[in-house]
Amino acid sequence: MKLSRTAIILKQKMTLISERWAPKIIAQMNDYHFKLAKVKGEFVWHSHADTDEVFIILEGSLDIELRDGVVTLNKGEMFVVPKGLEHKPVAKDECHIMLVEPAGTINTGDVGGDLTAAEEWI
Amino acid sequence: MKLSRTAIILKQKMTLISERWAPKIIAQMNDYHFKLAKVKGEFVWHSHADTDEVFIILEGSLDIELRDGVVTLNKGEMFVVPKGLEHKPVAKDECHIMLVEPAGTINTGDVGGDLTAAEEWI
Repeated sequence: MKLSRTAIILKQKMTLISERWAPKIIAQMNDYHFKLAKVKGEFVWHSHADTDEVFIILEGSLDIELRDGVVTLNKGEMFVVPKGLEHKPVAKDECHIMLVEPAGTINTGDVGGDLTAAEEWI
Repeated sequence: MKLSRTAIILKQKMTLISERWAPKIIAQMNDYHFKLAKVKGEFVWHSHADTDEVFIILEGSLDIELRDGVVTLNKGEMFVVPKGLEHKPVAKDECHIMLVEPAGTINTGDVGGDLTAAEEWI
Protein backbone atom coordinates (compact mmCIF):
# COMPACT_ATOMS: atom_id res chain seq x y z
CA MET A 1 0.00 0.00 0.00
CA LYS A 2 1.30 3.42 -0.97
CA LEU A 3 0.58 6.51 1.07
CA SER A 4 1.31 10.00 -0.10
CA ARG A 5 0.46 13.52 0.87
CA THR A 6 0.08 14.82 -2.65
CA ALA A 7 -2.70 14.86 -5.20
CA ILE A 8 -2.97 11.99 -7.65
CA ILE A 9 -3.24 13.68 -11.05
CA LEU A 10 -5.21 11.36 -13.29
CA LYS A 11 -4.03 12.82 -16.62
CA GLN A 12 -0.40 12.70 -15.48
CA LYS A 13 -0.76 9.07 -14.43
CA MET A 14 -2.40 8.26 -17.77
CA THR A 15 0.73 9.42 -19.62
CA LEU A 16 2.61 6.57 -17.94
CA ILE A 17 0.42 3.97 -19.63
CA SER A 18 1.25 2.68 -23.09
CA GLU A 19 -0.18 -0.86 -23.24
CA ARG A 20 -3.92 -1.18 -23.78
CA TRP A 21 -6.22 -3.31 -21.60
CA ALA A 22 -3.59 -3.38 -18.85
CA PRO A 23 -4.99 -1.54 -15.79
CA LYS A 24 -2.38 0.08 -13.54
CA ILE A 25 -2.96 0.81 -9.85
CA ILE A 26 -2.87 4.48 -8.81
CA ALA A 27 -4.44 4.41 -5.35
CA GLN A 28 -5.56 2.14 -2.55
CA MET A 29 -8.55 2.72 -0.24
CA ASN A 30 -8.76 0.07 2.47
CA ASP A 31 -8.54 -3.18 0.48
CA TYR A 32 -9.73 -1.65 -2.79
CA HIS A 33 -7.65 -0.48 -5.74
CA PHE A 34 -8.25 2.45 -8.08
CA LYS A 35 -6.78 1.64 -11.50
CA LEU A 36 -6.35 3.50 -14.79
CA ALA A 37 -6.41 1.90 -18.21
CA LYS A 38 -6.34 2.79 -21.88
CA VAL A 39 -8.59 0.58 -23.95
CA LYS A 40 -9.48 0.21 -27.61
CA GLY A 41 -11.15 -2.63 -29.44
CA GLU A 42 -12.88 -5.61 -27.90
CA PHE A 43 -12.05 -7.19 -24.56
CA VAL A 44 -13.16 -10.72 -23.65
CA TRP A 45 -16.45 -11.83 -22.15
CA HIS A 46 -15.90 -12.45 -18.45
CA SER A 47 -17.42 -12.01 -15.02
CA HIS A 48 -16.21 -11.53 -11.46
CA ALA A 49 -17.86 -14.10 -9.21
CA ASP A 50 -17.04 -12.31 -5.95
CA THR A 51 -17.26 -8.60 -6.60
CA ASP A 52 -18.98 -5.70 -8.31
CA GLU A 53 -16.73 -3.63 -10.59
CA VAL A 54 -16.88 0.12 -11.22
CA PHE A 55 -16.07 1.74 -14.57
CA ILE A 56 -15.62 5.54 -14.71
CA ILE A 57 -14.95 7.12 -18.12
CA LEU A 58 -12.25 9.81 -18.14
CA GLU A 59 -11.90 10.27 -21.92
CA GLY A 60 -13.77 8.82 -24.86
CA SER A 61 -16.60 6.31 -24.88
CA LEU A 62 -16.95 2.67 -23.87
CA ASP A 63 -19.65 0.13 -24.52
CA ILE A 64 -20.13 -2.45 -21.82
CA GLU A 65 -21.83 -5.30 -23.61
CA LEU A 66 -24.07 -7.47 -21.46
CA ARG A 67 -25.76 -10.69 -22.51
CA ASP A 68 -29.11 -8.86 -22.56
CA GLY A 69 -28.06 -5.46 -23.86
CA VAL A 70 -25.37 -2.81 -23.82
CA VAL A 71 -24.54 0.13 -21.59
CA THR A 72 -22.84 2.98 -23.45
CA LEU A 73 -20.64 5.15 -21.27
CA ASN A 74 -19.28 8.55 -22.26
CA LYS A 75 -16.78 10.84 -20.54
CA GLY A 76 -18.01 11.77 -17.07
CA GLU A 77 -20.21 8.71 -16.75
CA MET A 78 -19.90 5.55 -14.65
CA PHE A 79 -21.41 2.10 -14.29
CA VAL A 80 -21.31 -0.65 -11.71
CA VAL A 81 -21.09 -4.13 -13.23
CA PRO A 82 -22.84 -6.35 -10.69
CA LYS A 83 -21.04 -9.33 -9.22
CA GLY A 84 -21.31 -12.39 -11.42
CA LEU A 85 -22.70 -10.57 -14.46
CA GLU A 86 -21.00 -11.42 -17.76
CA HIS A 87 -19.74 -8.35 -19.56
CA LYS A 88 -17.48 -7.41 -22.46
CA PRO A 89 -16.02 -3.89 -22.70
CA VAL A 90 -15.71 -2.59 -26.26
CA ALA A 91 -14.24 0.74 -27.34
CA LYS A 92 -14.46 1.85 -30.96
CA ASP A 93 -11.81 4.53 -30.37
CA GLU A 94 -9.25 4.81 -27.58
CA CYS A 95 -10.94 5.34 -24.25
CA HIS A 96 -9.41 6.21 -20.86
CA ILE A 97 -11.06 4.62 -17.86
CA MET A 98 -10.77 4.36 -14.09
CA LEU A 99 -11.68 1.06 -12.45
CA VAL A 100 -12.49 0.53 -8.80
CA GLU A 101 -12.45 -2.99 -7.44
CA PRO A 102 -11.01 -5.10 -4.61
CA ALA A 103 -7.23 -5.48 -4.59
CA GLY A 104 -6.36 -8.70 -6.35
CA THR A 105 -9.26 -8.58 -8.80
CA ILE A 106 -8.15 -10.07 -12.13
CA ASN A 107 -9.07 -8.05 -15.22
CA THR A 108 -10.18 -11.11 -17.15
CA GLY A 109 -12.22 -12.44 -14.22
CA ASP A 110 -13.15 -16.08 -14.55
CA VAL A 111 -11.78 -16.65 -18.05
CA GLY A 112 -8.07 -15.76 -17.85
CA GLY A 113 -6.10 -15.87 -21.08
CA ASP A 114 -3.59 -13.66 -22.86
CA LEU A 115 -5.22 -10.39 -21.82
CA THR A 116 -4.78 -11.12 -18.11
CA ALA A 117 -2.79 -8.21 -16.64
CA ALA A 118 -0.20 -8.35 -13.87
CA GLU A 119 -0.74 -6.14 -10.82
CA GLU A 120 1.39 -3.01 -11.17
CA TRP A 121 1.46 0.43 -9.54
CA ILE A 122 2.24 3.57 -11.49
CA MET B 1 -28.84 -1.23 -3.08
CA LYS B 2 -29.88 0.07 -6.47
CA LEU B 3 -29.11 -1.76 -9.67
CA SER B 4 -29.57 -0.28 -13.08
CA ARG B 5 -28.56 -1.04 -16.63
CA THR B 6 -27.90 2.55 -17.61
CA ALA B 7 -24.97 4.92 -17.29
CA ILE B 8 -24.73 7.12 -14.22
CA ILE B 9 -24.17 10.61 -15.63
CA LEU B 10 -22.23 12.56 -13.03
CA LYS B 11 -23.13 16.05 -14.28
CA GLN B 12 -26.81 15.13 -14.45
CA LYS B 13 -26.74 13.80 -10.89
CA MET B 14 -24.97 16.95 -9.74
CA THR B 15 -27.91 19.07 -10.93
CA LEU B 16 -30.04 17.30 -8.32
CA ILE B 17 -27.93 18.66 -5.47
CA SER B 18 -28.62 22.06 -3.97
CA GLU B 19 -27.41 21.86 -0.36
CA ARG B 20 -23.68 22.14 0.22
CA TRP B 21 -21.63 19.68 2.31
CA ALA B 22 -24.41 17.09 2.00
CA PRO B 23 -23.09 14.10 0.01
CA LYS B 24 -25.72 12.13 -1.93
CA ILE B 25 -25.30 8.49 -2.92
CA ILE B 26 -25.22 7.73 -6.66
CA ALA B 27 -23.85 4.18 -6.78
CA GLN B 28 -23.02 1.16 -4.68
CA MET B 29 -20.15 -1.28 -5.27
CA ASN B 30 -20.25 -4.20 -2.83
CA ASP B 31 -20.56 -2.45 0.56
CA TYR B 32 -19.10 0.85 -0.65
CA HIS B 33 -20.92 4.00 -1.70
CA PHE B 34 -20.02 6.52 -4.40
CA LYS B 35 -21.34 9.95 -3.40
CA LEU B 36 -21.47 13.38 -5.02
CA ALA B 37 -21.32 16.68 -3.16
CA LYS B 38 -21.13 20.40 -3.76
CA VAL B 39 -18.90 22.15 -1.26
CA LYS B 40 -17.84 25.73 -0.55
CA GLY B 41 -16.23 27.24 2.51
CA GLU B 42 -14.78 25.36 5.46
CA PHE B 43 -15.89 21.97 6.70
CA VAL B 44 -15.05 20.73 10.21
CA TRP B 45 -11.91 18.95 11.38
CA HIS B 46 -12.71 15.26 11.66
CA SER B 47 -11.37 11.78 11.05
CA HIS B 48 -12.74 8.34 10.21
CA ALA B 49 -11.39 5.81 12.68
CA ASP B 50 -12.27 2.75 10.61
CA THR B 51 -11.78 3.68 6.97
CA ASP B 52 -9.80 5.48 4.34
CA GLU B 53 -11.80 8.05 2.31
CA VAL B 54 -11.38 8.94 -1.35
CA PHE B 55 -11.90 12.45 -2.75
CA ILE B 56 -12.12 12.92 -6.54
CA ILE B 57 -12.50 16.46 -7.89
CA LEU B 58 -15.03 16.85 -10.71
CA GLU B 59 -15.14 20.66 -10.89
CA GLY B 60 -13.19 23.38 -9.11
CA SER B 61 -10.53 23.04 -6.45
CA LEU B 62 -10.45 21.72 -2.89
CA ASP B 63 -7.87 22.04 -0.15
CA ILE B 64 -7.70 19.12 2.23
CA GLU B 65 -6.08 20.57 5.30
CA LEU B 66 -4.10 18.13 7.41
CA ARG B 67 -2.54 18.83 10.79
CA ASP B 68 0.90 18.82 9.16
CA GLY B 69 0.13 20.43 5.81
CA VAL B 70 -2.38 20.77 3.04
CA VAL B 71 -3.16 18.82 -0.13
CA THR B 72 -4.58 20.98 -2.91
CA LEU B 73 -6.77 19.10 -5.36
CA ASN B 74 -7.86 20.42 -8.74
CA LYS B 75 -10.30 19.05 -11.30
CA GLY B 76 -9.23 15.59 -12.43
CA GLU B 77 -7.23 14.90 -9.28
CA MET B 78 -7.84 12.59 -6.32
CA PHE B 79 -6.57 11.90 -2.83
CA VAL B 80 -7.00 9.11 -0.30
CA VAL B 81 -7.32 10.37 3.26
CA PRO B 82 -5.85 7.57 5.38
CA LYS B 83 -7.91 5.97 8.12
CA GLY B 84 -7.71 7.93 11.36
CA LEU B 85 -6.05 11.02 9.87
CA GLU B 86 -7.60 14.33 10.88
CA HIS B 87 -8.58 16.44 7.89
CA LYS B 88 -10.61 19.54 7.07
CA PRO B 89 -11.85 20.13 3.51
CA VAL B 90 -11.87 23.79 2.48
CA ALA B 91 -13.08 25.21 -0.85
CA LYS B 92 -12.59 28.89 -1.65
CA ASP B 93 -15.09 28.65 -4.50
CA GLU B 94 -17.78 26.06 -5.15
CA CYS B 95 -16.27 22.67 -5.84
CA HIS B 96 -17.92 19.45 -7.07
CA ILE B 97 -16.54 16.25 -5.64
CA MET B 98 -17.05 12.51 -5.68
CA LEU B 99 -16.44 10.56 -2.49
CA VAL B 100 -15.86 6.83 -2.19
CA GLU B 101 -16.19 5.21 1.20
CA PRO B 102 -17.92 2.33 2.98
CA ALA B 103 -21.71 2.50 3.16
CA GLY B 104 -22.67 4.07 6.46
CA THR B 105 -19.63 6.35 6.69
CA ILE B 106 -20.64 9.61 8.37
CA ASN B 107 -19.43 12.78 6.65
CA THR B 108 -18.39 14.40 9.92
CA GLY B 109 -16.62 11.25 11.11
CA ASP B 110 -15.90 11.25 14.83
CA VAL B 111 -17.10 14.78 15.60
CA GLY B 112 -20.75 14.87 14.49
CA GLY B 113 -22.53 18.21 14.74
CA ASP B 114 -24.81 20.28 12.55
CA LEU B 115 -23.03 19.40 9.30
CA THR B 116 -23.73 15.68 9.69
CA ALA B 117 -25.62 14.57 6.58
CA ALA B 118 -28.37 11.97 6.34
CA GLU B 119 -27.86 9.04 3.95
CA GLU B 120 -29.78 9.77 0.75
CA TRP B 121 -29.74 8.41 -2.82
CA ILE B 122 -30.21 10.63 -5.83
